Amino acid sequence: MRNDTVGGWLDELASESSTPGGGAAAAMNAAVGAALISMVCNLTIGRPKYAAHEKELSAALVEAEELRGQALRLAADDAAAFGSVIAAYKLAKATAEEKQARTAAIQQALVGAADVPLRTAELAAEVIGLARRILPGSNVNVVSDVAVAASSARAALDAAVVNVEVNLAALADEAHRTAVRDRLTAAVTAGAEADAVVAEVRERIAK
Amino acid sequence: MRNDTVGGWLDELASESSTPGGGAAAAMNAAVGAALISMVCNLTIGRPKYAAHEKELSAALVEAEELRGQALRLAADDAAAFGSVIAAYKLAKATAEEKQARTAAIQQALVGAADVPLRTAELAAEVIGLARRILPGSNVNVVSDVAVAASSARAALDAAVVNVEVNLAALADEAHRTAVRDRLTAAVTAGAEADAVVAEVRERIAK
Repeated sequence: MRNDTVGGWLDELASESSTPGGGAAAAMNAAVGAALISMVCNLTIGRPKYAAHEKELSAALVEAEELRGQALRLAADDAAAFGSVIAAYKLAKATAEEKQARTAAIQQALVGAADVPLRTAELAAEVIGLARRILPGSNVNVVSDVAVAASSARAALDAAVVNVEVNLAALADEAHRTAVRDRLTAAVTAGAEADAVVAEVRERIAK
Repeated sequence: MRNDTVGGWLDELASESSTPGGGAAAAMNAAVGAALISMVCNLTIGRPKYAAHEKELSAALVEAEELRGQALRLAADDAAAFGSVIAAYKLAKATAEEKQARTAAIQQALVGAADVPLRTAELAAEVIGLARRILPGSNVNVVSDVAVAASSARAALDAAVVNVEVNLAALADEAHRTAVRDRLTAAVTAGAEADAVVAEVRERIAK
C-alpha cells in the first residue's frame, strides 16, 4: 500500500479483489488522521506564541508518526489475515479428520482476522486521544485540521468495530469473543471524545 | 495526489507544508468511501442470487466511479484555492487603492476556498446516499464494507463542514455566507443517514 500510487490503491480498493477492502480502508483513515496530527504539530512547534505547549506537541508528534507507520502495517496485516481465512476455508474436507483440521484452521484464522481490526480500533482511539491532547496548544491557523484528524480517526474506529463484529460472528470460542468485545468496548469510548474535539473546534471557529 | 505514492502523500500531509491539508484529507475520505461502494457493487453484480438488485447496483457503480474521480479532483482544487488565498494576502497594501484591491482579492479567494469543502460535503452526502441505496441488494459477504464506506464518507462530510466554517468565518459577504450555509445544512442531513446505514449493517451482522 505504501508504495502504490493513491490512484492505483483506490482502483484496487474499488475492484472485485477482496483485498484491499474495508480493513485497509479503516487503516488508511487512521493513517490520514495521524498524518494530520503530525501536520498540526509541525506547524506549531518552534513558534514562540505556542512555546508553552512545545513539549506536549513534540511528544504528540513522535506518537503520531509511530501510529501512522503502524496504521500502514495494519493495512498489510489485514490482507494477510484475510488470506489465511480464505486458505483455511479451501482446506480438504473429505474425511472426518480433514473436517476437524479444517474447522480448527478456520477458527484460528478468524482469531487473527478479528485481531487486525481490533488493533485498528485501538490505534484509532489513540489518534483521537492525540487530537484531544494537542487541541489546547495547536496553532490557531490549523485548528480545523485537528477536527479533521479526529473525524478521520473516528471513521477508522467505527469501521474497525464493524470489521471486528463481522469476524466475531463466525468465531466459536466464547471466551475469546468476550475478551475481544471487552477490548473493543474500551476503544469505542473514544468515539465520543472525537465528537467533543470536533464540537470544540467548531465553537472556537465560530467565535 | 493521484500519482503520488500512498506513503509519499501521507508524508506530505504530515509535513509543515500547508497543502495537502484537511481539505485534501476530507476528499481522500470521500474517495475511500466511493471506492468501497464500487467494490461492493463489483462483488455483487453478475451473481444470480442478487439478480433482482442488478440494475440498482449497476447504476450505483457508475455513480460511485464518477464520485471517486470528482473527489480526487477536489483534493487538487483545494490546494489551488488555498494558494489563491495566500497569494491574495501577499498583495501590496501600501496605498489606499492597493488596500482596497487586496481586500477584494482576499474576499474573492475566500469564496473559492469555501466552495471546495462545500462541494466535498455535497459529494460525501452523495456517497452516503449510494451506501443507503445499495445496502438492501449488496452481497452479504461484503455488507460490512457498506458500513465502512458510509463511515468514511461521514468523516469526509464532518471534516468538510469544519473546513467550510473556517473559511466562512473570514468572509464578509453576508448573502454569500447565507447561501453557503443553506447548501451546507442540506448536505449535513446525510450524517444521520450514514449512522443509520452503520446501525443496520451491525444489526444484520449480529443476526
